[in-house]
Amino acid sequence: MYRSHNCGELNASNINTEVTLAGWVQKSRDKGFIVWVDLRDRYGITQLVFDEERTSKTMLEQAQNLGREFVIQVTGNVIERASKNPNIPTGDIEILVSKLNILNEAKLPPFTIEDKTDGGEDLRMKYRYLDIRRNPVKNSLIFRAKVTQEVRNYLSKEGFIEVETPYLIKSTPEGARDFVVPSRMNEGQFYALPQSPQTFKQLLMVGGMDKYFQIVKCFRDEDLRADRQPEFTQIDCEMAFIEQEDILNAFEGLTRHLLKEVNGIEVEKFPRMLYDDAMRLYGNDKPDIRFGMEFGELNDVAQHKDFNVFNNAELVVGIAVPGGNSYTRKDIDKLIDWVKRPQIGALGMVYSRCNDDGSYKSSVDKFYDQDDLAKWAEVTGAKAGDLVCVLSGETNKVRAQLSALRMELAERLGLRDPKVFAPLWVIDFPLLELDEETGHYHAMHHPFTSPKPGQIELLDTNPGEVKANAYDLVLNGNEIGGGSIRIHDKATQAIMLKHLGFSEEEANAQFGFLMDAFEYGAPPHGGLAFGLDRLVAILGGQETIRDFIAFPKNNSGRDVMIDAPAPIDDEQLAELSLKLNLKS
Amino acid sequence: MYRSHNCGELNASNINTEVTLAGWVQKSRDKGFIVWVDLRDRYGITQLVFDEERTSKTMLEQAQNLGREFVIQVTGNVIERASKNPNIPTGDIEILVSKLNILNEAKLPPFTIEDKTDGGEDLRMKYRYLDIRRNPVKNSLIFRAKVTQEVRNYLSKEGFIEVETPYLIKSTPEGARDFVVPSRMNEGQFYALPQSPQTFKQLLMVGGMDKYFQIVKCFRDEDLRADRQPEFTQIDCEMAFIEQEDILNAFEGLTRHLLKEVNGIEVEKFPRMLYDDAMRLYGNDKPDIRFGMEFGELNDVAQHKDFNVFNNAELVVGIAVPGGNSYTRKDIDKLIDWVKRPQIGALGMVYSRCNDDGSYKSSVDKFYDQDDLAKWAEVTGAKAGDLVCVLSGETNKVRAQLSALRMELAERLGLRDPKVFAPLWVIDFPLLELDEETGHYHAMHHPFTSPKPGQIELLDTNPGEVKANAYDLVLNGNEIGGGSIRIHDKATQAIMLKHLGFSEEEANAQFGFLMDAFEYGAPPHGGLAFGLDRLVAILGGQETIRDFIAFPKNNSGRDVMIDAPAPIDDEQLAELSLKLNLKS
Repeated sequence: MYRSHNCGELNASNINTEVTLAGWVQKSRDKGFIVWVDLRDRYGITQLVFDEERTSKTMLEQAQNLGREFVIQVTGNVIERASKNPNIPTGDIEILVSKLNILNEAKLPPFTIEDKTDGGEDLRMKYRYLDIRRNPVKNSLIFRAKVTQEVRNYLSKEGFIEVETPYLIKSTPEGARDFVVPSRMNEGQFYALPQSPQTFKQLLMVGGMDKYFQIVKCFRDEDLRADRQPEFTQIDCEMAFIEQEDILNAFEGLTRHLLKEVNGIEVEKFPRMLYDDAMRLYGNDKPDIRFGMEFGELNDVAQHKDFNVFNNAELVVGIAVPGGNSYTRKDIDKLIDWVKRPQIGALGMVYSRCNDDGSYKSSVDKFYDQDDLAKWAEVTGAKAGDLVCVLSGETNKVRAQLSALRMELAERLGLRDPKVFAPLWVIDFPLLELDEETGHYHAMHHPFTSPKPGQIELLDTNPGEVKANAYDLVLNGNEIGGGSIRIHDKATQAIMLKHLGFSEEEANAQFGFLMDAFEYGAPPHGGLAFGLDRLVAILGGQETIRDFIAFPKNNSGRDVMIDAPAPIDDEQLAELSLKLNLKS
Repeated sequence: MYRSHNCGELNASNINTEVTLAGWVQKSRDKGFIVWVDLRDRYGITQLVFDEERTSKTMLEQAQNLGREFVIQVTGNVIERASKNPNIPTGDIEILVSKLNILNEAKLPPFTIEDKTDGGEDLRMKYRYLDIRRNPVKNSLIFRAKVTQEVRNYLSKEGFIEVETPYLIKSTPEGARDFVVPSRMNEGQFYALPQSPQTFKQLLMVGGMDKYFQIVKCFRDEDLRADRQPEFTQIDCEMAFIEQEDILNAFEGLTRHLLKEVNGIEVEKFPRMLYDDAMRLYGNDKPDIRFGMEFGELNDVAQHKDFNVFNNAELVVGIAVPGGNSYTRKDIDKLIDWVKRPQIGALGMVYSRCNDDGSYKSSVDKFYDQDDLAKWAEVTGAKAGDLVCVLSGETNKVRAQLSALRMELAERLGLRDPKVFAPLWVIDFPLLELDEETGHYHAMHHPFTSPKPGQIELLDTNPGEVKANAYDLVLNGNEIGGGSIRIHDKATQAIMLKHLGFSEEEANAQFGFLMDAFEYGAPPHGGLAFGLDRLVAILGGQETIRDFIAFPKNNSGRDVMIDAPAPIDDEQLAELSLKLNLKS
């Protein structure tokens, strides 16, 4: 062992004991006759001291030449510090070094190893091993480990069995794209990496495993939006002989446990909201309910005048911005520009100021009188001093636009406090979703989700109206988990696949093993999967997931540290019976 | 919830309560006027009863028509059984059913769902979801989950942090073959699936993470021997600021914890054996020390006569078979045939019977007298009633042959008791291994293993003699873990790679990121990885790993249940900029 103690544990009670520490040189201060060195390891920082009186000349010189991030081992006596540092646990003491051993030298790091570093994202990723030395990253990884350990402890105590499902599975043309893996031993054939262990966990239920979970990597070869990774981790769960209510209770229990153990926060029973209500009130299936600003639908009180922008709109809808009447004309113009940006896509914004004296002043005073505007205020819940912002247009689009505006304004108003946690179940999702490009319906959750009892007939007549036993767990405006009650009989599964456009042949080729399994005594079952990366980031009070992943990839799916992916040589390709077929 | 209780928990204390159970029909006995049904779930079996007197006629008929593996839900009263079954926890009671609900019918399963099934391996794999319903498989998976949970609890308590390393990494031509993954977003480029997270865990040490572990899937695209899987699970561990002694103690602690918590067995400090001694005494670097039968090297006492088979041999070596003098001539001839099989490859076997009267009778009495044979007995530790078996030839070959014979005889003698656990550290492995095909040395462990201090100079003169700070943990004749102290400076790593035949260019292309990392303050570090699949099987008292893997692949690397790998369509290939280039 290179040390008797770590750099985070020594304090006044250790004074006058000889200790050996090892770690990295965080920084040093050299006054000529005395040198202080901050020695850092995973656990903290301990101050070392070398001086003319008490240290040999050679060692003092050595200490003077220590560079940042040198790895050293020191032995010395714990002594009381002259000027104490109350900000760190070891701040009362320092080590008077009697032995100094340089374990490894270090080149000057390309960015500072400090909580606030001068390194940009790209540099930090290239030298991720140095970035991990920084507290924010190191602590995020330790935090992640704590969360997963709590998940495992809780679920194990509740009787869930962690089962590893395979990573080399079969490609399905369904949904987002598979990564494929050529097999050398099976010429011309490919495995696929799982986008989720969905079918395997269902087979475990058919196998009687009853309560399953797994913390598991999943893979998706798709164009990466910011903050998405080609490989990501799920807490994957499934239960048999349960109804939706049981699933919601089980995983509400898990989430409540995490909030308590990890964040020290006790949360009451999670509210539940119908998908339709979430869309109507927040324009969004993952509403952030840490704050209000609910939508007010204004068709009834805004389509009776000569303002054709509203009259021709499918939906006129507004929100009240608390204190928004203090915005200057310029502020509001900027807000209008903001909603007109292509990312949001609104054509314009109507507003109405709620003055302190109870009067209103709107951008459409030409069309609407005080009584009209009073009704707008009433419907949106605006009070004196607020600003009512109104958008109009095609329902789905305008809801998305107003939802974006709501989130932006809440951010500006400081209403999205990362220390506040507001979980929410959104339930009764539609079974199918219209793909506007192709005009076809596809499964909103996945093809194994069961329709609400009695609604399967609607599939033929009004597929968009069919609701599913599907639910999402939302935390602070982020979907952290989602799941459904599954189909567990072959006939229903066959109807579902037919409606999703699978021929019988295709259905059998892809999912034959699952349909077979349903014939050998499949129990009713359902489950849920949490996105671990995001869950951990949110519990950690962050919005971006990258610092909670040890070695993340960039937006092109590249690991810039190891420089992957990379070409492979022709011999390796030939062994796999493959040839490149480059487009360019 | 479909049930108030599970099928394993009701007993006499529940008599006269109404309960609801759900599960599978294990079997039923129909006496016409009375039907008993064994209802099974993950937790056990509960007997249901339907009869003419107390059950409605319709329900009795329904019960009579229940097939094996039907999924049912029943409500009824817990009553005392007339004829109790002391072999199961629920054997004192049965359920007088008042409500029967068939949740799902089942086709007759292709094999019996019993502890001893009539299904062959292939059928069981194709219908693995049915196989998992059988106790031996189900219990193995639950056992595995318990082991991993204990591993995590122990290591977390010891301050290890579980960190997830990436699955999409970079291909290295080194060692066994990588599975590669074409990247759609990076045309003509490939990720590789990790054979182990080796370099990443070393980078975590450079990053100051100090004590790391991960239970992680690894991948190897090689011809599968029986009982190997293309994807397998490791408990991967690494520590910084430690010496070999610290690693051995840390993971001996983990293994002792598992033996205690999982098997209820307390084991004293694990013995340690030099690699050279293991080879000399057992012909094997993973000796099973549950029993003796150590090798006795006989060159000194067998090369002084006219028997040229021995005189020309590099090594003459024997073992004493306890009680082996009872073997008939025919038994011994069979044994000689056994060692001459091509899998073993011996040219013959010399034996010497140790008679009860202290005399000897050997197959080479023509050459050796009683004094000679007495010395053979002394060197091999044979006692009266034993049989001395002697092989001779080239050292490495004859050791392997005698080791195989030793294991086979121990198996026949019942000396390999799966309930007995004999762990052993084998230390001081050679750094390099001669590849007899190519005549080149390659890394015995991996290229990051550090040579023993002061031995690096030997690399030039006598590379085969260089010992490494490398160690294996052996349990009952199986290597369950292995590791090493790593190189942590760029210069040594460069020398190592050069000796392994890497040009400077290749070394940089493959391991540049690691060599760079070593320049920014790398601490001394080392680690170990356990093969989880085998560890779990051995702790579970089994030699084969397949039942401890939920969805294993067969010897051709195929998942016969989902039928993977499989061809993918041309469109998918084109998207990946690939073309098939079939050899046949």
